[in-house]
Amino acid sequence: MISFENDYTVGAHSEILNRLIETNMEVLSGYGNDCFTESACIKIKESCGCSNAQIYLAVGGTQTNQLVISALLKDYEGVLSADTGHVSVHEAGAIEYSGHKILTLPSQFGKIRGEELEEYLKKYYADENHEHMVFPGMVYISHPTEYGSLYTRKELCIISQICRSYNIPLYIDGARLAYGIASNETDVTLKDIAVLSDVFYIGGTKAGALCGEAIVFTKNNMPKHFTTLAKQRGALLAKGRLLGVQFDTLFTDDLYYKNGKHAIIQKDKMVRILKNAGYRFYYESPTNQQFVIIENNLLKKLKEKVSVSFWETYDENHTVVRFATSWSTMDADILELETILKSL
Amino acid sequence: MISFENDYTVGAHSEILNRLIETNMEVLSGYGNDCFTESACIKIKESCGCSNAQIYLAVGGTQTNQLVISALLKDYEGVLSADTGHVSVHEAGAIEYSGHKILTLPSQFGKIRGEELEEYLKKYYADENHEHMVFPGMVYISHPTEYGSLYTRKELCIISQICRSYNIPLYIDGARLAYGIASNETDVTLKDIAVLSDVFYIGGTKAGALCGEAIVFTKNNMPKHFTTLAKQRGALLAKGRLLGVQFDTLFTDDLYYKNGKHAIIQKDKMVRILKNAGYRFYYESPTNQQFVIIENNLLKKLKEKVSVSFWETYDENHTVVRFATSWSTMDADILELETILKSL
Amino acid sequence: MISFENDYTVGAHSEILNRLIETNMEVLSGYGNDCFTESACIKIKESCGCSNAQIYLAVGGTQTNQLVISALLKDYEGVLSADTGHVSVHEAGAIEYSGHKILTLPSQFGKIRGEELEEYLKKYYADENHEHMVFPGMVYISHPTEYGSLYTRKELCIISQICRSYNIPLYIDGARLAYGIASNETDVTLKDIAVLSDVFYIGGTKAGALCGEAIVFTKNNMPKHFTTLAKQRGALLAKGRLLGVQFDTLFTDDLYYKNGKHAIIQKDKMVRILKNAGYRFYYESPTNQQFVIIENNLLKKLKEKVSVSFWETYDENHTVVRFATSWSTMDADILELETILKSL
Amino acid sequence: MISFENDYTVGAHSEILNRLIETNMEVLSGYGNDCFTESACIKIKESCGCSNAQIYLAVGGTQTNQLVISALLKDYEGVLSADTGHVSVHEAGAIEYSGHKILTLPSQFGKIRGEELEEYLKKYYADENHEHMVFPGMVYISHPTEYGSLYTRKELCIISQICRSYNIPLYIDGARLAYGIASNETDVTLKDIAVLSDVFYIGGTKAGALCGEAIVFTKNNMPKHFTTLAKQRGALLAKGRLLGVQFDTLFTDDLYYKNGKHAIIQKDKMVRILKNAGYRFYYESPTNQQFVIIENNLLKKLKEKVSVSFWETYDENHTVVRFATSWSTMDADILELETILKSL
Repeated sequence: MISFENDYTVGAHSEILNRLIETNMEVLSGYGNDCFTESACIKIKESCGCSNAQIYLAVGGTQTNQLVISALLKDYEGVLSADTGHVSVHEAGAIEYSGHKILTLPSQFGKIRGEELEEYLKKYYADENHEHMVFPGMVYISHPTEYGSLYTRKELCIISQICRSYNIPLYIDGARLAYGIASNETDVTLKDIAVLSDVFYIGGTKAGALCGEAIVFTKNNMPKHFTTLAKQRGALLAKGRLLGVQFDTLFTDDLYYKNGKHAIIQKDKMVRILKNAGYRFYYESPTNQQFVIIENNLLKKLKEKVSVSFWETYDENHTVVRFATSWSTMDADILELETILKSL
Repeated sequence: MISFENDYTVGAHSEILNRLIETNMEVLSGYGNDCFTESACIKIKESCGCSNAQIYLAVGGTQTNQLVISALLKDYEGVLSADTGHVSVHEAGAIEYSGHKILTLPSQFGKIRGEELEEYLKKYYADENHEHMVFPGMVYISHPTEYGSLYTRKELCIISQICRSYNIPLYIDGARLAYGIASNETDVTLKDIAVLSDVFYIGGTKAGALCGEAIVFTKNNMPKHFTTLAKQRGALLAKGRLLGVQFDTLFTDDLYYKNGKHAIIQKDKMVRILKNAGYRFYYESPTNQQFVIIENNLLKKLKEKVSVSFWETYDENHTVVRFATSWSTMDADILELETILKSL
Repeated sequence: MISFENDYTVGAHSEILNRLIETNMEVLSGYGNDCFTESACIKIKESCGCSNAQIYLAVGGTQTNQLVISALLKDYEGVLSADTGHVSVHEAGAIEYSGHKILTLPSQFGKIRGEELEEYLKKYYADENHEHMVFPGMVYISHPTEYGSLYTRKELCIISQICRSYNIPLYIDGARLAYGIASNETDVTLKDIAVLSDVFYIGGTKAGALCGEAIVFTKNNMPKHFTTLAKQRGALLAKGRLLGVQFDTLFTDDLYYKNGKHAIIQKDKMVRILKNAGYRFYYESPTNQQFVIIENNLLKKLKEKVSVSFWETYDENHTVVRFATSWSTMDADILELETILKSL
Repeated sequence: MISFENDYTVGAHSEILNRLIETNMEVLSGYGNDCFTESACIKIKESCGCSNAQIYLAVGGTQTNQLVISALLKDYEGVLSADTGHVSVHEAGAIEYSGHKILTLPSQFGKIRGEELEEYLKKYYADENHEHMVFPGMVYISHPTEYGSLYTRKELCIISQICRSYNIPLYIDGARLAYGIASNETDVTLKDIAVLSDVFYIGGTKAGALCGEAIVFTKNNMPKHFTTLAKQRGALLAKGRLLGVQFDTLFTDDLYYKNGKHAIIQKDKMVRILKNAGYRFYYESPTNQQFVIIENNLLKKLKEKVSVSFWETYDENHTVVRFATSWSTMDADILELETILKSL
């Protein structure tokens, strides 16, 4: 049984594990006050080309989104998101649990468009009763999106400029950012992300770490007493070293970039194989997640040998499934997939 | 200057004021433990044909929605509402402030449809990852809706049955219920509302009271320690008599129904006048709110003599405005409107 | 049966009722945008000697405390209060419901002391781990306190100075402020309250109104979009006129002060009668609430003829009860009390 | 420089690290649906002698307390805790952030007493106005407490019985439970904890894991949809294997117990050395944390060579500091401490 189910099915990259072993018995302060966290932050800032960035290492994605959004928003504000956004659909209401509304925009394969964002904001402020409505206080996008799609540099610039003209921060969810910046079809770099956003996070969990997401405040805008806010939301890890060592390793010798690149290379191979085998793509994304339309009987057989994710029902006889590669996808997996597809 | 701006521009119906005066110096217990609150509840139950209903008198509409919804939902649940629903758009995020997501359904002139509700619920439970999503824990509708539209008895039955088959309560916002049940074009009575819903509220503020909304739990389903929950949300009035006397009066000698009827009679006259004057209706509602498309220059002149509400931009040259009648709309107002329209 | 149970057992002062009647049919804007609210605010500012104060009229006390405290505090902050404070004990957790901790200080008859406040703040900031603790972000006191006790001008100055030196606002709950400033034993005026606090509220409910509390931000420090924050907490009244007319009347021809004075005069008479009848005081407060120790058998007899409030158990054979006068306490009540006490 | 600063200064026990390495490349489902989590739960249930326990693995202590308490309490309920309880003092208001009040009881070296608990509950329900107060809905204790103190079996039985008679759950915070049950001075076992509590957690972070706390619902009382509640609070880890593998290892071959025992043995040695060197104990606890009173000049010298934690100021010239041993305290550390103490 081979797996293309998602990008978090195995543990950590070996270099990360090795560093955890090497540093295991060092006596260190807790709560992120350790030398590895410090070193990780320095390296991340450098990678982002943002020397005065402020960085906080959290454990998981939903936790990160809840922490960042609730820490930045005023009580009377909500966050604008694609209607398909992870915060809106797949986080069990974590944002609303923190007291804030998610204001949704229409989306296409997970992306919002500058025009619709601007139209929303204009219309909102034109409404005489807008004081009875939730203020749009932030824009949330993910890059790549839930659908693996990517914003172009120009699209990000437009969204960023709209945010600035309305004086609201742009927050980019980078759970799979490694696979976004490694794409062959992108003109967006990590440095662009840092310049164009006000805050973003670099996903570790899906890029080779056991856990961990690095929140980057790019405009000297980390909310006051952020550690206390994190503690209050259960997002302050006692042994912060676990996060520090992992991110320090990811940003040493470009491991983060290499992990991203690897998944893209494997994705290219996988796409070729699927196409050669005559599979139809629902959406051919530029990143590590691919969406394929499969006839239901065929899918049944396929699933006996390959793990993939159910995405949605296509029609009575077909289903959309997701194939994902990752930093850990081996050539052997790709070859086996080819063999299996031929045998079906 | 005459006003058709909304249905809460004047104080209270004279009978209510008189009762407040008559009872003013009676020494009464606070927090709803007074004889007038008790009497009001008995009369409301009778009017609803629901002898074992449980009733709580709150002060305002947003407060009521926040209290009812947050008291009934579990933490992991959200409330289904029309995307145009008052709780979703015009309550400044009060529901989210209490920790719950509003799950939106498409709507037409404020109404949701049974089919789309059922489809939502089916699809939700079919999703393998629904434990990562907000559980649909209640259906919220308003009757009349924000657009003055009304559900038919059959439509309500369908929605009610869907709710029961999914074991989630149906909550009806009756801010303008007086004008709904008084409509000439409805087959829905107060008793139907009580039978078909699990909880609803009878709006006092817009039906002749200074303030006050009567929450009716129809299925012996008032949440435990509801008074404490209300206190905790700032919704327990010290001088509960203010609400008790008002509702006791509204439900004496059918004042509530008469107030509703009066607004509908005046609405009919107003519609006739507007039509005679050649005005085009955006939506001719069966209740006290009417939506009229007016050319912008004409609107400018009209607004010098008549207060109406901006509703939305129709096109470059036209605006949709709302004309509302109420329990207090006088014949003189209607006549003056006729004169003014002729003079424009 | 006469009642000294509390200070909100009857409706409104006749002048307030009269104004509600007179203004009842005036067509006014909703949500506090009416001329009476405007006029009330002007008069309150003048009374407070604080021409640039910002004022918001809310409906009830718990609502007011929840709104003010949650609007002013940052997420990481809590509010310091006497351990007996109303917000800490008798508001069903309304402050915690809004997400904030109440940090308690020891109290004597409801009052906190400057020394203990300062000690708390010093110790807090001296703790190396204070980032893992709730930041003290506001001081809440009530004047009069729950026990009817009053701060001296000097005591208030000390508390106020400590707050300023730590840069945290001082909030004074004035639910019974009318009876505080009317006391014969106080050197604190309404103007002092305005100078020494950052925000306070003038209680209407217990001073002759049907409902209503006027929140006064004294230092140009009303939180941004306060109306939206109020709406979100269910604290924005549609017919704001109900509050506007009442406060406009209370601050016309010194009605608010007269109501306060009346209760104090009646309190003096009541105390004299109780003392003459040999009753022992648990605490002889300078305001309208008096705490008397009564032998249980005697209390049983008394309660057949006089309503008083249970306060606490004194010992096996005695109970502390509260006698309260108010703006509405009549000479006849006092005389009847005298007769009853003699007859027991 | 040797460290007795706390019990989380190094990484994980070598057996845990080894298992992480061995299992690293296994393809596993996310979100706790992996075989190691399953195996860990089976072993924990066995260790607790509670075959129908329900177990959830969370990442950290504050997260765990927030999740358990907010999931079990009704909106109108608060949690009773020692005034020194971790949830009350050192979690940055995480419980209040989730909307609930902490109701404090007096404590002695971190422990509450059954009598005072019962008295609180009795008094609460005797108060006529208790519906205006927060309902006591749970009792929180920690074992060991913040001060390293332990409840006796009898004391726990009494507290447990009181909880049952009032029908409220008893929750035991076991962040350092390993060091509690390993004490030479306890008659309380893990099985006792499971029998006497309704829910408790087994701390991993301080007992040899990198992170992780195992929540054990002992009475078939895990709240419905607990995974969703965890997700909503940011407490659902994508790579649940990280927790599963660690707890599976801790509960294999008694590693958890051995880790606890080791710290107690080292504690005994450390106490002997400190006593021999003439140090005075503020509180000689039966577990791995020891509180020593040290003259300030001496402390200054000591801290150049030994890391200890500031606990509190004792008097002008003395400070209380905490010395902690743990599963990782080596004999060499103990010997070096002895040498250093002699040299001062």
